Amino acid sequence: MIDDLDRAIMSALARDGRTPYTTLARQLAVSEATVRQRVSRLQVSGALRIVALCNPLTLGHQSVRLMIRVRDLTPRAVAKSLADMPMINHVALVAGSQDIFLEGTCRDQAQLVQLLDEIRMLPGVSRVQVLLLLELFKDYSWNGLNSSVGQAVADG
Amino acid sequence: MIDDLDRAIMSALARDGRTPYTTLARQLAVSEATVRQRVSRLQVSGALRIVALCNPLTLGHQSVRLMIRVRDLTPRAVAKSLADMPMINHVALVAGSQDIFLEGTCRDQAQLVQLLDEIRMLPGVSRVQVLLLLELFKDYSWNGLNSSVGQAVADG
Amino acid sequence: MIDDLDRAIMSALARDGRTPYTTLARQLAVSEATVRQRVSRLQVSGALRIVALCNPLTLGHQSVRLMIRVRDLTPRAVAKSLADMPMINHVALVAGSQDIFLEGTCRDQAQLVQLLDEIRMLPGVSRVQVLLLLELFKDYSWNGLNSSVGQAVADG
Amino acid sequence: MIDDLDRAIMSALARDGRTPYTTLARQLAVSEATVRQRVSRLQVSGALRIVALCNPLTLGHQSVRLMIRVRDLTPRAVAKSLADMPMINHVALVAGSQDIFLEGTCRDQAQLVQLLDEIRMLPGVSRVQVLLLLELFKDYSWNGLNSSVGQAVADG
Amino acid sequence: MIDDLDRAIMSALARDGRTPYTTLARQLAVSEATVRQRVSRLQVSGALRIVALCNPLTLGHQSVRLMIRVRDLTPRAVAKSLADMPMINHVALVAGSQDIFLEGTCRDQAQLVQLLDEIRMLPGVSRVQVLLLLELFKDYSWNGLNSSVGQAVADG
Amino acid sequence: MIDDLDRAIMSALARDGRTPYTTLARQLAVSEATVRQRVSRLQVSGALRIVALCNPLTLGHQSVRLMIRVRDLTPRAVAKSLADMPMINHVALVAGSQDIFLEGTCRDQAQLVQLLDEIRMLPGVSRVQVLLLLELFKDYSWNGLNSSVGQAVADG
Amino acid sequence: MIDDLDRAIMSALARDGRTPYTTLARQLAVSEATVRQRVSRLQVSGALRIVALCNPLTLGHQSVRLMIRVRDLTPRAVAKSLADMPMINHVALVAGSQDIFLEGTCRDQAQLVQLLDEIRMLPGVSRVQVLLLLELFKDYSWNGLNSSVGQAVADG
Amino acid sequence: MIDDLDRAIMSALARDGRTPYTTLARQLAVSEATVRQRVSRLQVSGALRIVALCNPLTLGHQSVRLMIRVRDLTPRAVAKSLADMPMINHVALVAGSQDIFLEGTCRDQAQLVQLLDEIRMLPGVSRVQVLLLLELFKDYSWNGLNSSVGQAVADG
Repeated sequence: MIDDLDRAIMSALARDGRTPYTTLARQLAVSEATVRQRVSRLQVSGALRIVALCNPLTLGHQSVRLMIRVRDLTPRAVAKSLADMPMINHVALVAGSQDIFLEGTCRDQAQLVQLLDEIRMLPGVSRVQVLLLLELFKDYSWNGLNSSVGQAVADG
Repeated sequence: MIDDLDRAIMSALARDGRTPYTTLARQLAVSEATVRQRVSRLQVSGALRIVALCNPLTLGHQSVRLMIRVRDLTPRAVAKSLADMPMINHVALVAGSQDIFLEGTCRDQAQLVQLLDEIRMLPGVSRVQVLLLLELFKDYSWNGLNSSVGQAVADG
Repeated sequence: MIDDLDRAIMSALARDGRTPYTTLARQLAVSEATVRQRVSRLQVSGALRIVALCNPLTLGHQSVRLMIRVRDLTPRAVAKSLADMPMINHVALVAGSQDIFLEGTCRDQAQLVQLLDEIRMLPGVSRVQVLLLLELFKDYSWNGLNSSVGQAVADG
Repeated sequence: MIDDLDRAIMSALARDGRTPYTTLARQLAVSEATVRQRVSRLQVSGALRIVALCNPLTLGHQSVRLMIRVRDLTPRAVAKSLADMPMINHVALVAGSQDIFLEGTCRDQAQLVQLLDEIRMLPGVSRVQVLLLLELFKDYSWNGLNSSVGQAVADG
Repeated sequence: MIDDLDRAIMSALARDGRTPYTTLARQLAVSEATVRQRVSRLQVSGALRIVALCNPLTLGHQSVRLMIRVRDLTPRAVAKSLADMPMINHVALVAGSQDIFLEGTCRDQAQLVQLLDEIRMLPGVSRVQVLLLLELFKDYSWNGLNSSVGQAVADG
Repeated sequence: MIDDLDRAIMSALARDGRTPYTTLARQLAVSEATVRQRVSRLQVSGALRIVALCNPLTLGHQSVRLMIRVRDLTPRAVAKSLADMPMINHVALVAGSQDIFLEGTCRDQAQLVQLLDEIRMLPGVSRVQVLLLLELFKDYSWNGLNSSVGQAVADG
Repeated sequence: MIDDLDRAIMSALARDGRTPYTTLARQLAVSEATVRQRVSRLQVSGALRIVALCNPLTLGHQSVRLMIRVRDLTPRAVAKSLADMPMINHVALVAGSQDIFLEGTCRDQAQLVQLLDEIRMLPGVSRVQVLLLLELFKDYSWNGLNSSVGQAVADG
Repeated sequence: MIDDLDRAIMSALARDGRTPYTTLARQLAVSEATVRQRVSRLQVSGALRIVALCNPLTLGHQSVRLMIRVRDLTPRAVAKSLADMPMINHVALVAGSQDIFLEGTCRDQAQLVQLLDEIRMLPGVSRVQVLLLLELFKDYSWNGLNSSVGQAVADG
């Protein structure tokens, strides 16, 4: 189970993933060992990952968001195949008017054509809709969702 | 300009955002000061952010991906307003059949209703399409896109 | 054939399904045996069912409305298969831009993923569109459609 | 909070809304007073309603399912206005490619034209999609979702 | 009310609108006066119109079928305005994913552009979808829908 | 080739399909034989049909307009099969977002379900969209498109 | 009027816009003066333009095809405003599910964002759909459509 | 690589494809041999084609823009087959809500029906959307995209 201390740690790391554990420990009035243990447990359980997010536009890459409707196979089976493709960096099962949402990054237009060709040839893929990334305004920051401790960390 | 060393650093941090700079320096055969300087420059330029990604499903949250068609205002103006909302953690301008793509995370269904109400009342928002997150398969991992050094780090 | 007395009975029971037959008999100036006989005949003919409607949101469940486009099979054949699934509590053949409308209730997101997988694998199912229930405003109340007697019961 | 006894009662009433409380008490090995008290509490909390469902096709009525996209107003405000219309017997806020889902029943085509006219003139209504009911296969039966006691009642 | 004799007359006239009333009288074993009286009553009631249908393609015209979504006004008000336009020869209120269906015939492409401009400027018209007529396969023949007398006329 | 006299005749018959040829001859200052000959030639060439149009709503029928997207077969082949179905009274090949447009008339909802089932099972039919006829405003009147003679007949 | 000689000239120039008029004259067995006169007349009448087509992908540009739905203004008025924008190199009025089709070419993603912003702010523009050019297979070659002389030029 | 001189030449030829090379040489202050050499190199590299564009509406032709969604095959394979059809004069691979964009020109409606039939029978073609050309406002003029030299040519 995830408690308020976990949320406060996640909230702080969501702002800066490299905040030293000693700083977190001081802010949250716990020992550094506790912070380290909590982070480790959250990572193992799949609740937390600390990663570098790279802005594809700054790097001169083409980034696309794709939505896929699935047929004949289950969306889950198709999502697994998509997650294996190296140019695809995010795959999620969704409900609504689409079945799968994914993001991919390509070096240039030629690689984008190749990526779209590969996706469309995947068994179970029925329809692909493409949104081309033009500009990033906010990039996967997490707000901790109002735990009182998290708020204190955010404020102070 | 971003060179192969930058890409190798980004590629490594994309896998583990807290890799010590001394480890990176040894792997890439440069000094720790160089690594630190490069990371800092990449962060300042907006090419790199090191953050904790929190899986909303593990936390029992409702997460949605939304696509918005804009009217009367420019998509950029609407995107700026959306980026100010705390429950929204990602906002991007896109081209295709939609104008803005965003992600939001809510504690429960009631908060989701409130978020959707707020978005729909925003000036310039013409149509909102909602995809509910059901399951995550791959979460914003970046593949470095084939710089030879990056590949070496990935392999070793 | 359904006459005004039937409609008045249905109208009253649509408001409270457990109204005692003696109360109905007094309100409608007929004998209790008549009321009982009429209700029984309406139930046998399929015109009336007296049931408990359970609000899935109050119970913490996920409830979805789904619309399905059919292919290769007739919509009727697909509807019959859907009606056999226990998580689906309503199935109707419709005309417009969709072929089948249904409602399902799931304990949680994992069960919803499973339900959607099962539906999508059903032979004849071509496209599935999902609407997630956020809030109920009015729940299957029936207005009797203006029979003069029904109105009297509603007023008095 | 809703416990297993509540679920077992709901599950039984979902099959037959007029099951005598004495029968339920015997099946569930509790007193009749307990059953009565539980039903009453569930009704007051909005979790349970016992009603007559009337098949509109058997009655020669036209029944439609409508999906509405909202603009300028919040979906909630529009849903409240719709819930006040007597020909509309179900209104729900939904998320996906639509904002509001509703069901209406009309005596004939002329009344259906009038209903659609009224809905379209409602402030905030941006687009109306209509599905005409052709045939009912399963009508709002609730499966109790696997509480062990509920299952026992269902089996026995 | 329309009886079997009416249907048999309509069925015959649907095949050839100029069938002499004496021929109809003989086929249906009634007097010519009866036939004349019935046709007249059907025309006055709006159930029957005897007209020349002109194939626009044979005449070198451009014929379009249009579907319109309505906003702010009622579909009925918009349909009335459309019915007044001389180039439009058919207007119907419909339910589904569209509100109004109409057909128009134009001398050439320039007149088609003008017609579409006029329709789009009409108050209440929100979206216009155009289908261009390419080829006619069956043109408004009516099958009498199985009255036994109608069938006899059709067969003999 | 169709000349101004043909158009004047068609224009008059489009208003009343049973106008006596002697009346037409007098109005157009030609002999009755000429009128008869022209009408006959127009009918043989497929440019003109004189028929009774029966308002399905007055007759208590359900009338639908359907749009079909075709797959695997040519639209023409599917249109031919549709034209053979007795409940379908109009079939046209169209271009735009749909391939075939058709109209059908059914005695009641049960027959409509059957018609839709048959259409959906037809080889080559990929997607069916249904518009239910609610009200007729103008019914296949032809305006002659401005031949000077036609205008004279229309005015006088 | 355009005769077979005009078509043969157009057909040849559609393959190579700089074919010397003396070559054309020899191929078509007319004088050079005749060729020059015909080309000039075709250009003045708007039937022919001889231009350089530049492949945007070879030049490293972003090229988009856009479809626009119009509201409040006529499509023609909106098309005129679009034709004045320098980044837009093609504007056409179309019928179908869209009103205007256009092509634009931009130096980079930033300029594309600016172009889309400008288009969306144009009065009368209701919805913009964007297709990003990925690869060119055939680029505005004209086949002369079977005039016998044109065919001879094409063959020889 | 394409330099400013290339762009200036392309920009001038985009306005008039038959501008004599001597005129271009004088305007750009280079030798005629240089101009000729540059044009030749641009043509060989696929960056430039000098062609006659023929307005299909002036010629009385039917011109359509089509968008195609692909299935089972790659869009590239389908695009290649389409590019071989003589009535199709433009084929491009695109990303967005469609896969292929093409333009075709037909002598009349009958030939258009035939073209659409052929396209729909092509393996891999899943859905075809048709836009009929009504009026041309701007026809493939290229603006040189702001090279300073190109601007000078455009101004002078």
